[in-house]
Amino acid sequence: MRNILLTIEYDGTNFSGWQRQPNARTVQGEIEAALTKLIGREILIDGTSRTDAGVHANGQQASFALEDSGIPTDRIAKALNDILAFDKLEGIGDIKILNAKEMPEGFHARYSAKGKRYIYRIYNASEKSPFRRSQFYQIAESLDLDAMKKAAAFIIGTHDFKSFETSGSTVHESTVRTIYKLDISKSQLDSKLIEISIEGDGFLYNMVRIIVGTLVEVGLHKKTPAEIERIINAKDRSQAGHTAPPQGLYLDEVFY
Amino acid sequence: MRNILLTIEYDGTNFSGWQRQPNARTVQGEIEAALTKLIGREILIDGTSRTDAGVHANGQQASFALEDSGIPTDRIAKALNDILAFDKLEGIGDIKILNAKEMPEGFHARYSAKGKRYIYRIYNASEKSPFRRSQFYQIAESLDLDAMKKAAAFIIGTHDFKSFETSGSTVHESTVRTIYKLDISKSQLDSKLIEISIEGDGFLYNMVRIIVGTLVEVGLHKKTPAEIERIINAKDRSQAGHTAPPQGLYLDEVFY
Repeated sequence: MRNILLTIEYDGTNFSGWQRQPNARTVQGEIEAALTKLIGREILIDGTSRTDAGVHANGQQASFALEDSGIPTDRIAKALNDILAFDKLEGIGDIKILNAKEMPEGFHARYSAKGKRYIYRIYNASEKSPFRRSQFYQIAESLDLDAMKKAAAFIIGTHDFKSFETSGSTVHESTVRTIYKLDISKSQLDSKLIEISIEGDGFLYNMVRIIVGTLVEVGLHKKTPAEIERIINAKDRSQAGHTAPPQGLYLDEVFY
Repeated sequence: MRNILLTIEYDGTNFSGWQRQPNARTVQGEIEAALTKLIGREILIDGTSRTDAGVHANGQQASFALEDSGIPTDRIAKALNDILAFDKLEGIGDIKILNAKEMPEGFHARYSAKGKRYIYRIYNASEKSPFRRSQFYQIAESLDLDAMKKAAAFIIGTHDFKSFETSGSTVHESTVRTIYKLDISKSQLDSKLIEISIEGDGFLYNMVRIIVGTLVEVGLHKKTPAEIERIINAKDRSQAGHTAPPQGLYLDEVFY
């Protein structure tokens, strides 16, 4: 019995999110169907993060148990990409299996994760473009990055992030999380592209998108950086900013 | 009676091409539906180029006659974009009307066109990405740009381009066309991005994509630059290279 971990890149535009659903195209569903075809019996996988519809991944992780099977671990990625039609001239797919590796017994893509990094991409140009609609949050008004960086400094650290969770979410034991890093920078390739990189030990539902929406409101001078402290202390979703749209969000890396 | 010319940008990914079709989502069909809603009676438009499924436009043109109507010409673009849902936070659309202007009587978007420029975008990186699948032709093997530029020099000028037309196309009076410019360059923003810009007085069916496919084969050293002359003289589609896929092609500008 092998315990296999897949690293997966996907463009979430045409998926109803990660999680398997009847009658909907999902990333988990597509990969399970491909694995089932490859192995010849039903294979179910556990992903690290149940990304929402429209959310992307550069490095989603998913693990599964593989009983005796002829295929060597290092051939799994290519075989899956062939089934997923990733590498076809006319139809490069929207899921790419970056690699498959064998992990120790007891390893689990979600439960073993120590943290994650998300990247959120904003295209800050006066003219919005149809070509950027599915991979960026396009904002026409100029964003004040210095103000956003000041606001970000209040978010870094261990806090109760209840204000940054979509209300009505499942009840948790705790809404305390630790944000290790929150960097905001312009892309070296294109100064209109703003990347927000955020690392933490865990994230509440929509937490990254609400943090980004709040930072954007600071960047637009609708909120001040200092208000972030008050927003955190309020433990009230209505005090934070809007939920930034899904298409700017990328699950970048999972830490074990 | 006003004669209105629209300039239109679109991401062709989710369209069955430009041309109106029953039961298929097309660019012409979407714009006509929006115009009909805006004006309150059926409006049909004539586009300059019937782009295929998956082909994009930075500057498609389309004209239509507008009988007495309350809306000023300079308000048409914004009103159409509102109906087309271009500028919505969660759902920026895939068609953007860049502007509308009034043209002299007798002007026609297609018949008055003196020439066109297409741009073809190749992403030449060893790792293909799901995120570039719908807006680039992704080629993993390194392309020899110098060889491609030498080949391009044979294409510039007035030639019978029968070898560069999809066979079985409609019979024309002539398959002679003039290519004024054919530039091949790396993007200053990203050296992996190769842009082929091609201007001519007219283009046969799939002509740009077959020229690009042939240039790519030169870039991969499957053909030599000097073979282009022989391919043109053969007037035989089977002598030219493959048809490059639609997703790399952009109708960039129409000249009047």
